[in-house]
Amino acid sequence: MEFLVRAENRLPPETPDDVRERLRAGERERAMQLRADGTLCRLWRVPGRNATLGLYQAPDAAALHDALASLPMWPWLDVHVEALATHPQER
Amino acid sequence: MEFLVRAENRLPPETPDDVRERLRAGERERAMQLRADGTLCRLWRVPGRNATLGLYQAPDAAALHDALASLPMWPWLDVHVEALATHPQER
Amino acid sequence: MEFLVRAENRLPPETPDDVRERLRAGERERAMQLRADGTLCRLWRVPGRNATLGLYQAPDAAALHDALASLPMWPWLDVHVEALATHPQER
Amino acid sequence: MEFLVRAENRLPPETPDDVRERLRAGERERAMQLRADGTLCRLWRVPGRNATLGLYQAPDAAALHDALASLPMWPWLDVHVEALATHPQER
Amino acid sequence: MEFLVRAENRLPPETPDDVRERLRAGERERAMQLRADGTLCRLWRVPGRNATLGLYQAPDAAALHDALASLPMWPWLDVHVEALATHPQER
Amino acid sequence: MEFLVRAENRLPPETPDDVRERLRAGERERAMQLRADGTLCRLWRVPGRNATLGLYQAPDAAALHDALASLPMWPWLDVHVEALATHPQER
Amino acid sequence: MEFLVRAENRLPPETPDDVRERLRAGERERAMQLRADGTLCRLWRVPGRNATLGLYQAPDAAALHDALASLPMWPWLDVHVEALATHPQER
Amino acid sequence: MEFLVRAENRLPPETPDDVRERLRAGERERAMQLRADGTLCRLWRVPGRNATLGLYQAPDAAALHDALASLPMWPWLDVHVEALATHPQER
Amino acid sequence: MEFLVRAENRLPPETPDDVRERLRAGERERAMQLRADGTLCRLWRVPGRNATLGLYQAPDAAALHDALASLPMWPWLDVHVEALATHPQER
Amino acid sequence: MEFLVRAENRLPPETPDDVRERLRAGERERAMQLRADGTLCRLWRVPGRNATLGLYQAPDAAALHDALASLPMWPWLDVHVEALATHPQER
Repeated sequence: MEFLVRAENRLPPETPDDVRERLRAGERERAMQLRADGTLCRLWRVPGRNATLGLYQAPDAAALHDALASLPMWPWLDVHVEALATHPQER
Repeated sequence: MEFLVRAENRLPPETPDDVRERLRAGERERAMQLRADGTLCRLWRVPGRNATLGLYQAPDAAALHDALASLPMWPWLDVHVEALATHPQER
Repeated sequence: MEFLVRAENRLPPETPDDVRERLRAGERERAMQLRADGTLCRLWRVPGRNATLGLYQAPDAAALHDALASLPMWPWLDVHVEALATHPQER
Repeated sequence: MEFLVRAENRLPPETPDDVRERLRAGERERAMQLRADGTLCRLWRVPGRNATLGLYQAPDAAALHDALASLPMWPWLDVHVEALATHPQER
Repeated sequence: MEFLVRAENRLPPETPDDVRERLRAGERERAMQLRADGTLCRLWRVPGRNATLGLYQAPDAAALHDALASLPMWPWLDVHVEALATHPQER
Repeated sequence: MEFLVRAENRLPPETPDDVRERLRAGERERAMQLRADGTLCRLWRVPGRNATLGLYQAPDAAALHDALASLPMWPWLDVHVEALATHPQER
Repeated sequence: MEFLVRAENRLPPETPDDVRERLRAGERERAMQLRADGTLCRLWRVPGRNATLGLYQAPDAAALHDALASLPMWPWLDVHVEALATHPQER
Repeated sequence: MEFLVRAENRLPPETPDDVRERLRAGERERAMQLRADGTLCRLWRVPGRNATLGLYQAPDAAALHDALASLPMWPWLDVHVEALATHPQER
Repeated sequence: MEFLVRAENRLPPETPDDVRERLRAGERERAMQLRADGTLCRLWRVPGRNATLGLYQAPDAAALHDALASLPMWPWLDVHVEALATHPQER
Repeated sequence: MEFLVRAENRLPPETPDDVRERLRAGERERAMQLRADGTLCRLWRVPGRNATLGLYQAPDAAALHDALASLPMWPWLDVHVEALATHPQER
């Protein structure tokens, strides 16, 4: 099942560079794993914002939650999930 | 997978009684089938409104959509679906 | 450039079946053309609603507008477009 | 009487691990008591968020408030309560 | 248990005077009965609007719903109900 | 004239217990005075929240403001006031 | 006591010119009376809209409601009233 | 002074083609006049919608209102105006 | 040209009394100057809030901005400006 | 392609003057470069707020994002981007 995931990054602008860099590196690494296992299908930036839109695939909402909560940046993310239904044109 | 479904009924108040009654009867019958097959688990009224909150179970969002769209009242329903993740306390 | 397009279908429920069917058939045909020319990349149903989420690709917002306005259902669609920026992970 | 309870957890991400762990342990313990006495009927996670949706049963809104305010995490919870009316189909 | 009930009257301005008058008379009569049986405690007008705020008392949300739905104007009312908890200062 | 007053208490959860207790005691005392002089007529808790709904009576909005601003907790209250018009049924 | 009154005019654009003109003429006449008796102090247009912002003075919200409901256009007005408190600088 | 003007066109989709065409032609002609006299500076389409964003210049909000209300489509436009302040970088 | 200005004061409740008092005194003094030069016409308190509604007069939005930004409290104010058009009844 | 960019500046009012001044100077310098290369076309102040509205031109949303993220103040900006479609009148 597919999900549209909007994630606003609320990490404070005052965060020290090394903390931010460590978080970002971990984020990239974990995102690559989620791509590799087919969970993260596409990722876009919301232009002008420290935010992303992602297309995810997961067996259900609990599995999706676990994937999102495994991101190192998760404690600072404001996430909204929207369940997507396959369109008959694509079945 | 479970879903929380909020449905506002927008059938115009001016609808003739027999049309309304036929729709309601069909609605009850279809709802009973959805209960029988395990899709509709719980249903509440939003107090004061011609609206319901329902707890549904479906393999995915497409199956849920088909179940909701099979309701005779569906063309007049304003529906919002929220995907629910199983809580660790209930796993 | 990619765009996320949310389209709520406001065609009145009282629309005669043949009008609705003719519009839907035209909609499917035009959507297929937009898929063929690479404008419409993905399409999902918003579960429970007469609404879709689509991933579109177009040279710019004016070209996207022309594509959307070419849909036979367009006069009844309530459309919101969100510009998407390629994420560095996908460059 | 049943209530739908949405609870966003606003505990700051910077909270020390031991404080957070102590709060969570207390939360689990109190939640188990509320389940045992029939107040907390079901609990879901809102996918992607540090938030829950719960189905509660209480004699009235004051008793519900006391139950919610007895949770150790309550001072950091942003809670919205919605009163639910039994649906005639379930009477 | 007490409830705060906001009711916007959406009866179209074009409604014939006799229909409106009959509805209003029925509304007043039913409201008086709800006052007499202790369901409707207080009623205010929202200034400038065809709308009311009411303080109701009912055993639970289902009983409240039945009381509100018994109003002749109910099919045209847009109602929002808020459950109220007794304040410790008033226990 | 009557007013409906919604007050969300934004006192930070990290406030030391003695500060909070002193504020609460002062709040209770001042609220009792406002009851005694007929300004505060009814008070409810918004279930699940550190918030209240109150029914106040005051000669005008300026007098109401002075009453609310005299509460020791006022600097932390997020207050919304709604003017109420006497309903003809209660005149 | 003063009130800020926002009034959106929802008279349908399809209203026949003579009906509209009769309503407008009655509106102007009644507004002039409300100015003369000190109820309507100032009136502005919301630029670009068929809407006004008005500064009214009335003994209380019920008197204000009666004044607004006496406007011939009232059944089509979507009105929001905000109670204003005299500022200490102007006492 | 400059203004940002958002205009949603609410002309019903069922409007006969000739009425719509006559309105559109009049709209274009009046818009051209507003461009010629320096009132309408720029005009964009909101992609996917029957809506525009415009940059206008007018001595004040009353003059802007008169310009907008002179558009033949105005009775069907839902307009929001935002006053713009010259930025020091452009003074 | 006239403007309606809503200003919420976000000065933290924890601000030391002397800082707050110095800001307030400066605010009063600057407000008096703005009254004297005809910029600030009327000022109201939003009842229950640390907020004001003001009626201002300025040649254009840039001049209004400079006036508002000259208030000592401005860095803590959350300001919303609404352009007002003279109503034909008052021309 | 053109974009409308709304940017609220959330730099805390407590920021030391020299930090703020350094950021502003860098902001002005970078903005001048974005004007020179044709990215930033127009810039307005939202009256009364520490916020701007800008008209930008960029090949696509990713290029726009990079331009905005290159502003020294960007970590404190709350930015909303709206894609604009060329209007047929201006083609």
